[in-house]
Order: sequence, then structure tokens, then C-alpha cells
Amino acid sequence: MSERDTIISLATIAGESALGIIRISGNLCRQLCEDVFDTPSPTPRKTFLKNYRSFSGKNIDQVLAVFFDHGKSYTGEETLEISFHGNPLIANLILDDLIKRNCRLAVPGEYTKRAYLNGKLDLTQAESVAEIIAANSEIELEIANHQLLGSLSKKLLYVQSSLIHLQAKFEASIDFPEDEIRENNLPEVLGLIKPIKQTISKLIQSSDIKSSLSQGIKVSLIGPPNVGKSSIFNKLLHSNRAIVSIEPGTTRDYLSREIIISGYKIELFDTAGIRDTDRTVEKLGIQNSLDIIRDTSIVLLVFDSSLPYPNDFFAYIKEEIKSQTIIIIENKCDLKRVITSENYPTHSSVIRSSALDENCSKEIINEISKTLTTTYKIDPSKDILVSKRQQKHLSDSMNHLIEVQNLISISIHDEFILQELKMCIQSINSIIGQTDNEDMLDELFKNFCIGK
Amino acid sequence: MSERDTIISLATIAGESALGIIRISGNLCRQLCEDVFDTPSPTPRKTFLKNYRSFSGKNIDQVLAVFFDHGKSYTGEETLEISFHGNPLIANLILDDLIKRNCRLAVPGEYTKRAYLNGKLDLTQAESVAEIIAANSEIELEIANHQLLGSLSKKLLYVQSSLIHLQAKFEASIDFPEDEIRENNLPEVLGLIKPIKQTISKLIQSSDIKSSLSQGIKVSLIGPPNVGKSSIFNKLLHSNRAIVSIEPGTTRDYLSREIIISGYKIELFDTAGIRDTDRTVEKLGIQNSLDIIRDTSIVLLVFDSSLPYPNDFFAYIKEEIKSQTIIIIENKCDLKRVITSENYPTHSSVIRSSALDENCSKEIINEISKTLTTTYKIDPSKDILVSKRQQKHLSDSMNHLIEVQNLISISIHDEFILQELKMCIQSINSIIGQTDNEDMLDELFKNFCIGK
Repeated sequence: MSERDTIISLATIAGESALGIIRISGNLCRQLCEDVFDTPSPTPRKTFLKNYRSFSGKNIDQVLAVFFDHGKSYTGEETLEISFHGNPLIANLILDDLIKRNCRLAVPGEYTKRAYLNGKLDLTQAESVAEIIAANSEIELEIANHQLLGSLSKKLLYVQSSLIHLQAKFEASIDFPEDEIRENNLPEVLGLIKPIKQTISKLIQSSDIKSSLSQGIKVSLIGPPNVGKSSIFNKLLHSNRAIVSIEPGTTRDYLSREIIISGYKIELFDTAGIRDTDRTVEKLGIQNSLDIIRDTSIVLLVFDSSLPYPNDFFAYIKEEIKSQTIIIIENKCDLKRVITSENYPTHSSVIRSSALDENCSKEIINEISKTLTTTYKIDPSKDILVSKRQQKHLSDSMNHLIEVQNLISISIHDEFILQELKMCIQSINSIIGQTDNEDMLDELFKNFCIGK
Repeated sequence: MSERDTIISLATIAGESALGIIRISGNLCRQLCEDVFDTPSPTPRKTFLKNYRSFSGKNIDQVLAVFFDHGKSYTGEETLEISFHGNPLIANLILDDLIKRNCRLAVPGEYTKRAYLNGKLDLTQAESVAEIIAANSEIELEIANHQLLGSLSKKLLYVQSSLIHLQAKFEASIDFPEDEIRENNLPEVLGLIKPIKQTISKLIQSSDIKSSLSQGIKVSLIGPPNVGKSSIFNKLLHSNRAIVSIEPGTTRDYLSREIIISGYKIELFDTAGIRDTDRTVEKLGIQNSLDIIRDTSIVLLVFDSSLPYPNDFFAYIKEEIKSQTIIIIENKCDLKRVITSENYPTHSSVIRSSALDENCSKEIINEISKTLTTTYKIDPSKDILVSKRQQKHLSDSMNHLIEVQNLISISIHDEFILQELKMCIQSINSIIGQTDNEDMLDELFKNFCIGK
């Protein structure tokens, strides 16, 4: 650890602002306190107000600095954080000066990688740091916070210890053939494997939920033309904090926006009206709408309640909405009701809505919220959701475990089973980071932001 | 002071980054340490790593917090700085939570305004904080840093004390008419006024230099068509750190870019070639070039040295380049030299340049640098440059002082002179901030960035 060089980086975004932070990690930090700030013995963790004096003796800025001792910092190395007036010119002058003093610009994720290499975080915790920074919704944030505290690691260490327990049994059986496993202990061994498989399987499945949460749960407004989809779309946007403004759809046939409902990130689609038509352009638009529906978790089916039930429209979509949650919005309910509900899809909830009523969007949001909390029954303080990388290693371990079962069933020699079991354990270890795979580490940390 | 409410603000720029900072100032800070961080007695200035626990009991983020005691913070109030993972979602969750806990979002400049109201900074220092954040060049930064340390205040306090000394003389003369000033002390009084006027006058003049520095010193490349101006323009850009990329000129007739030379911000113009022409469009372009030249401090006059001296071109511009510094660039010097220098403008320096020679741009920059350091003979550690606001008050004080001299010369009663003298002192006080003008303060601080 002591041989690593000293890395520097802007930890905030460059721009005119009250403050910016430069973070320095490595063995030069104490010396920098003396050379730059005339503070040879900084009290760890205590901020000090000083002029940043450059190598050439110029006063660059009045800054607030704080020194963290070896072993007691984020990276585990000596660390120095400098809080300066938020001007990119000042940031550049300080970074240039630090380079003159033998520091080097950090690559993305390098601080967290050092924290991992120095044993301050395991890999699942390191990944959660990137997830905390990228989280778009409170749910994702809570889950990532929980993972930073080690929730996933704890579960994996439990799996690992169960596997090691199993491994010990096979090793004993090889060393002492008189205690042959197959004869005496087969039910016990298979009984040990079952809960491990269940745990791994549940974790593997959680990855899809995690993807949905981070990409946004897709909710689409569909219906015949001129039923008021777009006005409902706009109302839903305005009654919520829109977090990201996506470009309008690449075709003029749909619009999408991200909003937050009950802490979940939602991608809300407004689609082209669907009806029987011969016009090629319109047909294309309808095809797009159908594609969106297929990919959607929640469908908001909008009807004009002053018209009869649109059988032709429904014929178009009925094959596409079999697996989604359907919420029917009877729009224009201020007009005389003509529509009848006998042909409504079963198990759909119904909301009556009108442009005159300001509460409709609130009702729709409540209904979406209800669906979310039942479909994604997540308790962020307990549930664990794994990333794509973690899922890959979990799938590997699962395959090895299935192979272990197969080998047992064909009564192959314990040596081979043991080998498969060790590969299974190795896959679990790769998730936590008990491995020396430098390429895997590079791949993992390169997606971090600079300064972290 | 104790009655002010607690203000909060994001002090960094919102965006995905390693860190962000929220700054809290006001009486609630100590209570927040207890309620949010379970840290009822924070050690001032010592950072502590804690989970930010929201009002509703949720863990928002693992943060680094530091408490500053009353009287020992930037604002002079209790202050709490929270450094969180750089995700705008987290910033919003924390700010929302702090609002629930009776804090309020700060308006631009409010922290610095409080620092001023609490006597931590005078007005000239407060202004320098905004200038440090907005500085585009090292020179501006150094001057602002110097002003933050009180360089301008010191000078103004000296002027103020001289004026008060003068005031005392007139007051004595009114109270004890037997010591009438005019008869005995007239030379002494006028002798006292002279250096004050000189000091104020010098400060007033410095405002123009300050404007030039902050807007950028204009340098333009001009010459006949096809002499190689644009390639020189590009070379100058590439051999320097371009700090701001301005939009290409609003007409296709010129381009401008900001670069830094010797710590000065330069606005470099590439103009349309100038020649005698009948074409209306080209005439317009030439008119633009002439307008730019007039507004320029340094003119880089580019000739093709393989052609004769362009007398027609020179006839066009000679009236426009009388007050600027001229640097002649004899381009294409790798070709046979034809140009002769007998008609060059006097006092212009000459640089030989060619597309084949990589050192030309270095030579041109050196020459510009020489001009800058002689024209703007600034010693940032000594010289003081005043802002437009400060200049206005200085001009007011100067007018009052001239009026004092006039009144003395017509032997008016001392009472009237004293009145004028007091107004003069009042104008100086307004610069430092020894005044109660709330409107002036609002006007001054509203241009600060949020969080400062």
C-alpha cells in the first residue's frame, strides 16, 4: 500500500459556485500540509483555514483544508481535502500546482478502488458507492445505502460459509474414504444444497427488478385518437417532480418523460392514438404504440366515456396487454356517459377523469403508486437487489451447484464434485472481491465518476 | 444577529460527481447536529462521518459533516457543512428535509451578506469574494485575493482618516472662530487635500483597467485577404489554454476566442481581409473589421512578405490604428522576401512568421506578453483596482472634495465647507460599508452565486 503514488482530482463539478473540493490521496498528503499550508502537523479531521500557496510562492486562494490519517480515510491512505472558492480557474491552478509537487490526476473510480484494495470496502460496497451517486429515485438510493452497509456481502458470506461447510464434508470424505458421503450422508448433503440454491436463485431474480428500478418502470398512456391522452400526460408531469427531461421521441409518434411516483422512477409514455386505418404513416405510428405497450409494466387505457366502447381499438391491443397491469381512465366524464364497462379487461381498476377536475391526476398517481408497491414489494431496509455483474457471477455459481447435484446423482468420484464446488465458491468470492482478477477490477471501476 | 433564521443552500454545482456540499448557517445548526446526526455536542471544526437521518427516520446518505461555532465561521453564525455523495437526488432530499426542520433556502449572496452584517468582512472584501469566484485569469484572481485581505479597505481607511483630520480642523474653526482656518491655515488645508485627491483619482482610473482585465484585453489580427491570418489565429489558440469558447462571430466576417497570455484574459479576433472592393457584402465585412480594430488594444498586422507592401490596404486602416500597440507579422517568410519596411507604422515591432515554423506563435505570444506587462503594469500584490460600484462612490467623493476646494476659494462660511466634507466622507464610507443603506446592500449581493 505504501508504494502507491499520490492521486488528485476535482471531486465536485467544475463551474462558478460557492465551493469546490479537490481530494488528494497518498503518501504525500502530510508533506503537502507542510509545504502548501505551513502546517506540518495537521490535527486529523480538523479543518483549517489557510491560503493555498503555490510552488512558485503565489497565493492561489483562501481555502479550508482537512487532513485524514492513514487508515482513517475513505481510501485508507493519508488524505487531504481542499475546499476552495468554486471557480474552475482556481481548481486548475491548484491541480497544476499539485502535479508540480509530484501528484498525479486520478482515473475514474481510483479512490474507491484504493478503498477496496486497502480493505475499507468489499466489492459489493464499492459498487454501491457508484449506485448511490447514480441513483435516480429514493428506492434505488435506499437499496444502495443498505448495500453500502454490507447487506449483500452478509448474505453472500452466509452462502459462502454454507458452501465451505459442504466442501469440508467432501474433503473429509476424500481423506477418510471409510466415511463415504454418498452412502450415509446423501440426504443431508442434498438438504444443504437446497437452501443455498434458493438464496442464489432469489438474488439472481432480483437483478431484473434492479434494472427496472434504475431504467425506470415503464407506464404508457394508450387509447383511440382524441380521447385526451396528451392532456392527461401533461397533468401527470406537472403534478410530479420531473427528474430528467428526455428528448421528445425520435418519431413524432410518442413522447416520454421521467417522473417520480412514490420514490420510484417512472418512464411515462404518451403514444399515438390507435384506430383502424389505411394510411401508411399512421399505421407506422400505431405499430410504434403497440411496441411500446409490449414493453410496458403499467398500461393506462384511456377512453372517451361520452362515446361507446371502442371495440375496434380493443381488438387491436387485446393481445398486447395480457401481462401488464391495466388502469382504465374514463375521460371526459363531465359529458353524458355513453360507454359501458362490460367489455373492459378483467382485473382492471377504473378512474373517472375530466379536464375540469384537478384531482384526476392525483387519483391516477395513487392508483399507479398502489400497483408499484404491490408489484415491486420492496423493503429497501431488507431486500437485496443485485447488479448485472453480480448476477453473472451468481448464475455461474448456480450452474456449478447444479453440476454438483448432477455429479452426485451419477455417483461420480468426490474429487470431481469437490472441484465443481470450489468453482462455485470462487464465483461467490468474485462478487465480494476475494479474488485477484485485475482486469475485472479495472472493468468495474472504470464506470465510476472522476474523483470517486 | 441572533434573530436571523437558518439558511441552507447547495454550495457546489448539482450533478453526478464524487461530492457535493450543503451549507447551513444560523441558530438551528447545533440542534441539527443532535437531531440529524445524534451528535449533540459536535467538536467545532472537526469532521464527523455519520448517516444523514431524515425527519421521517430514513437514512438518506452517509455524509461527512463539520460544525463551526458562532463567531468562528464564514458568516459569523453557527454553521454546518454537509459533504454528501454527489447526486442531485441526495441534495434535494437533504434540502427538503432541512426545510421540514425549519430552515429556509438562501438567496444569492446571503451567506456573504451575513458575514458582512456580522462584521466578518467589510463590503470591499465581500465584493472580492464574488470576484474570486468569477475571475477568469490569474491576474484578476490575485487582485481579488489581495482585496479579500483588505488592500482596498486599508487605502480607503487612510483616505477616510485624512478626511476626518480635515473635518476636525473645520469643526475646531467653527467652535473657536478665533482660530479661523482661512487666514492662518489655508496652505496647510489645501496641502492636506492634494494627496487625498491624488489617491482618489488614481483609484478612479484603476476601474477602467479592472474592466479591461475582466472583459478581456482585445487583440485583433488584421491584414489584406489571403495573408494567412486564420492560420495564425488557430496557432495562437492551440498554443494556449482557451478558457471560454465564445460563439463564432454573429457574422461570418470575424471569429473571436478567449485565451490566456501571461495570466491575462485576451479576446483574440480574426477579422475579414481588408481590400478595395465594390462588392457590397465584402464592404460590410470590411466595415466590421474596421469597427473591431477601433475597439482593440493590440493590433497584429499581418502581411504576406512575398508580396510588395500593400499601400491600398494601409490607406484603409491608417486612421484607425493610431492609438493601439502594433505588432507586424511578416508571414510566409519561407518564400522570397519582396515586402519592404520603409512604410511600416512607426514604433511597431516586427516578427517573421511562416506556416513551416512552429516557433512563430511562441514569438507572437512573447511580444503580446511584453506589451501587456508594460501597458498594464500591474503588481497584483500592491496595486488596487476598483469596481464600477466603488468607482461611482469615489467619483462622488471626488466631486465633494472639489466642491470643498471651490468653497474655500470663495471664502464661504466654514459650516458649508464642513457639510460638503461630511458628504465626501460619507461616499468613502459607502464603499467600505459603514452605512445602513439596505437597498445598496441588496443590489450588491444579488449578483452573487447561490450558496455564497
